[in-house]
Amino acid sequence: MWAAVVPEAKARWELREIPTPRPGPGQVLIRVHACGVCHNDLLVSQGVFPFPAFDPVVVGHEAAGEVVEVGAGVTGRRVGDRVGATWVQATCGRCAYCRLNLPLSGQSGMNCPEAVMSGLTVQGGHAEYVVVAAASTVLLPDAVPYETAAPVLCAGYTAWSALRAADPGPRERVAVLGIGGLGHLAVQFARAGGFETVAVTSSPDKHRLARTLGADHVVADGDGLRAIGGADVVLVTGTSYRAAAGALQGLRPNGRMVLATIDPVEPFAIPPTSPFWAQRQQVIGATHNGLDRLTEALDLVASGAVTPLVETFPKERVAEALDRVERGEARFRAVVTYA
Amino acid sequence: MWAAVVPEAKARWELREIPTPRPGPGQVLIRVHACGVCHNDLLVSQGVFPFPAFDPVVVGHEAAGEVVEVGAGVTGRRVGDRVGATWVQATCGRCAYCRLNLPLSGQSGMNCPEAVMSGLTVQGGHAEYVVVAAASTVLLPDAVPYETAAPVLCAGYTAWSALRAADPGPRERVAVLGIGGLGHLAVQFARAGGFETVAVTSSPDKHRLARTLGADHVVADGDGLRAIGGADVVLVTGTSYRAAAGALQGLRPNGRMVLATIDPVEPFAIPPTSPFWAQRQQVIGATHNGLDRLTEALDLVASGAVTPLVETFPKERVAEALDRVERGEARFRAVVTYA
Amino acid sequence: MWAAVVPEAKARWELREIPTPRPGPGQVLIRVHACGVCHNDLLVSQGVFPFPAFDPVVVGHEAAGEVVEVGAGVTGRRVGDRVGATWVQATCGRCAYCRLNLPLSGQSGMNCPEAVMSGLTVQGGHAEYVVVAAASTVLLPDAVPYETAAPVLCAGYTAWSALRAADPGPRERVAVLGIGGLGHLAVQFARAGGFETVAVTSSPDKHRLARTLGADHVVADGDGLRAIGGADVVLVTGTSYRAAAGALQGLRPNGRMVLATIDPVEPFAIPPTSPFWAQRQQVIGATHNGLDRLTEALDLVASGAVTPLVETFPKERVAEALDRVERGEARFRAVVTYA
Amino acid sequence: MWAAVVPEAKARWELREIPTPRPGPGQVLIRVHACGVCHNDLLVSQGVFPFPAFDPVVVGHEAAGEVVEVGAGVTGRRVGDRVGATWVQATCGRCAYCRLNLPLSGQSGMNCPEAVMSGLTVQGGHAEYVVVAAASTVLLPDAVPYETAAPVLCAGYTAWSALRAADPGPRERVAVLGIGGLGHLAVQFARAGGFETVAVTSSPDKHRLARTLGADHVVADGDGLRAIGGADVVLVTGTSYRAAAGALQGLRPNGRMVLATIDPVEPFAIPPTSPFWAQRQQVIGATHNGLDRLTEALDLVASGAVTPLVETFPKERVAEALDRVERGEARFRAVVTYA
Repeated sequence: MWAAVVPEAKARWELREIPTPRPGPGQVLIRVHACGVCHNDLLVSQGVFPFPAFDPVVVGHEAAGEVVEVGAGVTGRRVGDRVGATWVQATCGRCAYCRLNLPLSGQSGMNCPEAVMSGLTVQGGHAEYVVVAAASTVLLPDAVPYETAAPVLCAGYTAWSALRAADPGPRERVAVLGIGGLGHLAVQFARAGGFETVAVTSSPDKHRLARTLGADHVVADGDGLRAIGGADVVLVTGTSYRAAAGALQGLRPNGRMVLATIDPVEPFAIPPTSPFWAQRQQVIGATHNGLDRLTEALDLVASGAVTPLVETFPKERVAEALDRVERGEARFRAVVTYA
Repeated sequence: MWAAVVPEAKARWELREIPTPRPGPGQVLIRVHACGVCHNDLLVSQGVFPFPAFDPVVVGHEAAGEVVEVGAGVTGRRVGDRVGATWVQATCGRCAYCRLNLPLSGQSGMNCPEAVMSGLTVQGGHAEYVVVAAASTVLLPDAVPYETAAPVLCAGYTAWSALRAADPGPRERVAVLGIGGLGHLAVQFARAGGFETVAVTSSPDKHRLARTLGADHVVADGDGLRAIGGADVVLVTGTSYRAAAGALQGLRPNGRMVLATIDPVEPFAIPPTSPFWAQRQQVIGATHNGLDRLTEALDLVASGAVTPLVETFPKERVAEALDRVERGEARFRAVVTYA
Repeated sequence: MWAAVVPEAKARWELREIPTPRPGPGQVLIRVHACGVCHNDLLVSQGVFPFPAFDPVVVGHEAAGEVVEVGAGVTGRRVGDRVGATWVQATCGRCAYCRLNLPLSGQSGMNCPEAVMSGLTVQGGHAEYVVVAAASTVLLPDAVPYETAAPVLCAGYTAWSALRAADPGPRERVAVLGIGGLGHLAVQFARAGGFETVAVTSSPDKHRLARTLGADHVVADGDGLRAIGGADVVLVTGTSYRAAAGALQGLRPNGRMVLATIDPVEPFAIPPTSPFWAQRQQVIGATHNGLDRLTEALDLVASGAVTPLVETFPKERVAEALDRVERGEARFRAVVTYA
Repeated sequence: MWAAVVPEAKARWELREIPTPRPGPGQVLIRVHACGVCHNDLLVSQGVFPFPAFDPVVVGHEAAGEVVEVGAGVTGRRVGDRVGATWVQATCGRCAYCRLNLPLSGQSGMNCPEAVMSGLTVQGGHAEYVVVAAASTVLLPDAVPYETAAPVLCAGYTAWSALRAADPGPRERVAVLGIGGLGHLAVQFARAGGFETVAVTSSPDKHRLARTLGADHVVADGDGLRAIGGADVVLVTGTSYRAAAGALQGLRPNGRMVLATIDPVEPFAIPPTSPFWAQRQQVIGATHNGLDRLTEALDLVASGAVTPLVETFPKERVAEALDRVERGEARFRAVVTYA
């Protein structure tokens, strides 16, 4: 099969022919129709994350496609199923974390030190075929095309988990910090949930777009957020913790700021003069918070309330797709098609 | 292998030699050391539940033992593991319920119409060996002997899930209605959680015992509960919904009554004059609420804070064990040893 | 001042001139512009509730108007404030309930045996003026006229508290049982919250109206609810517990049914064959769950998302208003104007 | 009456005779038996907080005593009541915060910009008599002497609110960072709640004491906490945010760190390499979270499960008490007696 191989750290991806994998017990083989490019794919190929030990390295954890073969013992998936695969495929089921957190399900599995993760510990989805644990897949609603589903499997999953982790009440105001791959989905999710929505972006060219996506207000930063009365929830979808901490000044009493991303350079600093304690605010870490969250996100996309904006590239142009993500030019998520 | 076979509805169980099963992919073979007798086993053999379609019928969903063989694809369990098996082994992963409730995990799986359930849809644990889905097992703490672990796998799991579903706050008062297989564990769990504990039992001979188990108060019924000031939580562990409804009068404002059992005959009736609405009370259904709950329960037993009281029978006397359960004489849970 | 006096149990209300009250410390005098007729007013004048001990009896706990005088020590309200008054004015602050439930606030105060309640223990709002505890009033948003605000102060407050008590998650389906004074508001609240909404009403003439109010589906009863796939939340706003229990069959797994009303005749019966426990369902009592809930409800009305439908009567026709409520003809809430 | 007057910023407190206040409507006059010295009292007299505008300045918000006179309109308190007064006496009831957060109750009132606060905006409790809003007082359990109650009114209230804000589940492990005025209570509260408890203190001389208070483990810092397997909850009771951030490494997945104090100098920094997001951790601000929390804390003290350790000073030695607090020598809370 053809696959997008990462030859080594800091090298361009190359489309190469490699052996097609076969599913073992409990696994399915997916004919990949579309796989999204995630920022973490970049961190692997840039060498920020440790370079994977398997060979050849194929990354990708936003693969959407059709089940073409099921391994022994698989009852929950059938040939022909339209599925999406998630980052964490399996956990050890034995460690302290697994014992108390729904062992053997895919929920927040990245806290298990033995977690099996697509593109990080095993071959990922930027290929014509990928093998994944059946239990880590979700059935895609018929109404969602593969190219649309792909970015939901990580970016949308994260954005929706972040909103749900904040548990906004009716009529609360939700701000989204950063309008990119995650943020453009977070704005739509917040709007679909019925919340007054604020987009916070320092890019003037995104203001009009943010309104199109459903933002009731668009401001440039924490100052601007405070000026319009603040928000009950701030979802941090960009990678600047400095900007995130700056937005604390626009967080209302009892407000919750959700960190769903990594800033590899700077800390997230609650300043010494902050009334954080007196205002009973919270900073909440969020990630892929369970497959039920992913299913909810997909259902929202299927309903038409949320639509990922993607740039689609045929597999032959995968390196170009990665370049656009690296330069921050993708509007808003690059998806590579393999079928 | 030897197994306790239910020949037909309303017939006595018989120890027979039947073929030893082999584990398929994703399954493990357990050398059963001990299997508890649950009231639901009785309902099957009495013909109250539909008689199972597989043959021969072996019931039992409180099997504790040692893994002696693992099927293909099993990574989370190993030969030699001390494990307990739970009632629901697997779900379909495709129905509306499974889609939104952590598909393919064992959590509350009985709401899936295709659920695979030990002793109900597949052969159960009253035998020398049993095959179960690896994902539905829990690792037993070393400190918990098999005979002690067995009743935790259903009775303890239910009792602890019920207490957790009520989510009692610090210093709340917890009443346990019915001091039997579930109730004698619920009293201990409530006590171990630091709650003021009330045992509600109409059997005078159990009063002293209830205090030994940790009850701060013992009363006969709802009248008695009200007389001592009521409770914030009432866990209904007996099978009389009439008694349960009678205890509503002893439920405090904001109180929660948890129904974890079946009354096959009478309804649970909130009376028309009840201030249920004004007092913002709740009636909460609970069952096996997720494997994390079972692990917590086992950890409490391992810590010594909770000790199931069991009567142990060798496999040759399994019919006698059942008789004692049927007559309500077991103090408090009958366990049959098969190794 | 003119007031609608209830001469005795089962007698018609009469407009009489009685002394205008004066506010004591901590109280305000309200010039009543509008006061809604609540079903509980009827229960008092019908003699179902004990006849009040004060004289003359003036009922009414949905009074909206202008503060015209403030008593000593009042800092939170000023002359000229547009306010609404709530049923429970004050609690004892000393009993077991008050000690642990925010003493001296208006929250769920009806559980305090010494609660001061408009129209029940002290003179109510069906008059040109009423005196109430300042702490039990809410500021009305400018956008909400008095006649619109009045039914929110009890009916809307109850309906919104019920919905909030169910704590529906995104995309859950909410059914409203009974389309009357409370129900027509509950449908709108559910819709405004972004939930798929089902109206359950046995009155065919209300079907079209229910859709106008925002219902996505209209069904006749629990059978009908089950037929369309059930609901995650059922808000019981009518007074038939039999109908409510019948709707249990349309409650999904993990579903919550909220009882916010009184059935003076029949019990609410969970049938013996119900899978209530296995499906982890809940029955939740709700009432006026705190002034924050009332403010939220008023804000929703101010936003235009929810509009109480009222029939307005001048004070001279107050007896007629009551008759229409008694005959169940009001669409949907009768409001009497006193200014 | 005699009162401890703060002559000006950075001056020693002086016992002076000043006029005895009288209660207005809604207020009570308390004969102060004991008033605790809080670190915030120090911040006022050191000039870190703005110097209060009333004259003479008497600080103190941990006053416990007897009601000797009630103002007009007070129904919830009576002459002879043993009461404690809390920091925030009243709020405006009109601002955005008050509208949505139980207006006119004492709950988290410090977010109201017009909040009336003892010792900060009005005369406080370091005097023979103090006037406070009746609604901001709590009834003291008979079993709690005044000197014991005093430090519960702020320090204990804060520590217990912090623990409750973390909402620990059964068997979770709770670490307390800093064993001082708040921390020595937090350790006891955690222990009384049935949680495995870790004291984190850099003072070797406090190790033995921490165990006496109920700590199962004592470690020196975040490194030590990680070495023993971490904690699910970390309560930050000291004033070093640097130490707090250092303890993040000992916070387990899904763990919650509660900030209940002010570090006037340094930020609280989640480092860039932290897996905070992946581990779904939380940082939670907490303060006086509602009078129900205070009542719970007092009930725990009354039960004997928690005992504040205090150094008691007669009013003539109030300056000495302050000195000991300033030097960090008090073990663990200084209380001044005025009766």
